[in-house]
Amino acid sequence: MTPTVPAYRRLSVEERRSQLLDAALTLFAHRAPEDVSLDDVAEAAGVSRPLVYRYFPGGKQQLYEAALRSAAEELRLCFDEPLHGPLLPRLSRALDRYLGFVDQHDTGFSALLQGGSVVETSRTTALVDGVRRAAAEHIFSHLGVTAPGPRLRMTVRMWITAVEAASLIWLDEDKQPPVEELRDWLVEQFVAVLTVTAGRDPQTAALVGALAEDGRD
Amino acid sequence: MTPTVPAYRRLSVEERRSQLLDAALTLFAHRAPEDVSLDDVAEAAGVSRPLVYRYFPGGKQQLYEAALRSAAEELRLCFDEPLHGPLLPRLSRALDRYLGFVDQHDTGFSALLQGGSVVETSRTTALVDGVRRAAAEHIFSHLGVTAPGPRLRMTVRMWITAVEAASLIWLDEDKQPPVEELRDWLVEQFVAVLTVTAGRDPQTAALVGALAEDGRD
Repeated sequence: MTPTVPAYRRLSVEERRSQLLDAALTLFAHRAPEDVSLDDVAEAAGVSRPLVYRYFPGGKQQLYEAALRSAAEELRLCFDEPLHGPLLPRLSRALDRYLGFVDQHDTGFSALLQGGSVVETSRTTALVDGVRRAAAEHIFSHLGVTAPGPRLRMTVRMWITAVEAASLIWLDEDKQPPVEELRDWLVEQFVAVLTVTAGRDPQTAALVGALAEDGRD
Repeated sequence: MTPTVPAYRRLSVEERRSQLLDAALTLFAHRAPEDVSLDDVAEAAGVSRPLVYRYFPGGKQQLYEAALRSAAEELRLCFDEPLHGPLLPRLSRALDRYLGFVDQHDTGFSALLQGGSVVETSRTTALVDGVRRAAAEHIFSHLGVTAPGPRLRMTVRMWITAVEAASLIWLDEDKQPPVEELRDWLVEQFVAVLTVTAGRDPQTAALVGALAEDGRD
């Protein structure tokens, strides 16, 4: 990605910061975080190394965490979906945006979720967990559930983890199957695992009943 | 766990090593790896600190990796199940052993899988991934599949990740629901996600047909 703002224009602090984060995210998309230096970021953004250091005095680790925070923010936006209309198409649209994010950030996404990165710390792990929790909260609010019981909670969290695993495998398998098929397949799995839980949990059974009604509208 | 071999008896190198690893695994089961010192291991095993260092000259990191390797070995044994008889009871028995392992190793199991631990490295990540791959291989061999296609492979790997997530949530939720319910629920989810994939993949469809036959025997 070419920086959209030419380097010679005087940028505000926020614009400059976001330009540097964009450059960093683009680099992380194609290389493991430990292989990205501040020099690389300076070069990609067309600015001097001291400038990068002025914005991220904590060096690479600070830049990585800021980039991660910005990616987490972007991921949360994927889940943003109006709370009306049939439920499964809402889930489809959110998954479309999420898979678009995975597609765009590629290697950076894998490095982030697979762990074992030298720049992984309890702070970065907490960021990733925060996104997972946000995804679960979104799903419950779309399902209209304010107090999910343990079985429903476990089912939704398991499905979110399975979606993450699917994204990583999908990147690993050269983005096969096509993204639309993957999205529909994940939606079908959501309904299937909820249906299994419905056999053991009245709260989930009520939701599955409502989903079936919903599909008939 | 009390060491089964009294400390005053002269142990062989292998016996001593395994005694120290047992002591370490027991400690890791109740504390995060970074909170376990070699002193603690020496005390738990009833031996001197220099002795622990003689066996693990690389210190805590080496001890942790050796304990992890030994836990991974133990986990692989959980999957060991004769290749005959109806399929779903085989899966049930393997899950029983796996959930027994999760129950026994508790905090150590969470710390290991959740990452963010200060002692996590690319080597420990590779160990954990090795166990996941072994689990997938076992499942394919029980299903009698030598060349799983991408859709079947993705389904099985997603289910394995979901089982891991379920184990962590289960530990987090004070081991609720009861382990037998969790096991049966996971087996049902396995059948449900395979059935979803069967709608998109002839190889998986053939397996689901065979599973249904199998259940009728």
